[in-house]
Amino acid sequence: MKIRRASELDQDAIWRIIEPVIRAGETYALDRNLSKADALSYWLGIDRETFVAEENGTIVGTYYIRQNQGGGGGHVCNWGYMTDHSAVGRGVAREMHQHSLEIARERGFRAMQFNFVISTNERAVRLWKSLGFEEVGRLPGAFLHPTTGYVDALVMYRIL
Amino acid sequence: MKIRRASELDQDAIWRIIEPVIRAGETYALDRNLSKADALSYWLGIDRETFVAEENGTIVGTYYIRQNQGGGGGHVCNWGYMTDHSAVGRGVAREMHQHSLEIARERGFRAMQFNFVISTNERAVRLWKSLGFEEVGRLPGAFLHPTTGYVDALVMYRIL
Repeated sequence: MKIRRASELDQDAIWRIIEPVIRAGETYALDRNLSKADALSYWLGIDRETFVAEENGTIVGTYYIRQNQGGGGGHVCNWGYMTDHSAVGRGVAREMHQHSLEIARERGFRAMQFNFVISTNERAVRLWKSLGFEEVGRLPGAFLHPTTGYVDALVMYRIL
Repeated sequence: MKIRRASELDQDAIWRIIEPVIRAGETYALDRNLSKADALSYWLGIDRETFVAEENGTIVGTYYIRQNQGGGGGHVCNWGYMTDHSAVGRGVAREMHQHSLEIARERGFRAMQFNFVISTNERAVRLWKSLGFEEVGRLPGAFLHPTTGYVDALVMYRIL
């Protein structure tokens, strides 16, 4: 797997990955009806660095990393990632995460934070715990899941 | 005390309140060197509603309220407030908060969240706890305080 910076030329491939995740509305606190243009300007925003993971020339995952807060909070980064549904379960998220840890350290970040992990996204919660993240917060009923109703969201944190 | 929507005409009065708080860098995760234009476009951003509290025609405090997350997280609001240093301790924050609760309910929000209360800001932590907020998360060392060094930040939450 090769992980590299995303470019303008990757927009269609990124959209193919992120559109079904956004439309499902189960794992990200993003408007399910977000347009392609708005979704891409979020995912590739100027406040973040965005990467893609390629396997035999096909993009199978994408992630971004950004500063989570300004000022005195600037040493903590936030990241978000999505894996192509055809590649789920093959370690793409884990590999992107390892890559992001190197990027985070290179950029001088001292910790990484997830602001809003949906508690029903058990695969993600398990993965992040196995990779050293701690649940440092729980937001009661903060997410309206399309089928389950109001569920908690977790704040997860890892010192680098 | 009269609390009303902020207008363009209030920009200088708002800046007089928020500039010293931003420059001190002790209570908000904002760049301490933020320019007046950038600070006002943050405080009066189009993603939020901003209010001012007036006492005898003088603006003594200001707050904003906004949706904290998109999509399935849209029922939780976030708010931020600052009180003029000459008016601290006179209940301005408390009164603005009562006002914001009404606004939050009118807008259909079901909960209110502080994402990043600096743990050394004891006056604020005490006030929010007395007003029904719970500490639902603690981010270890997530804020670099200008004199104390790395301190925790709290996530505080209240169901409406």
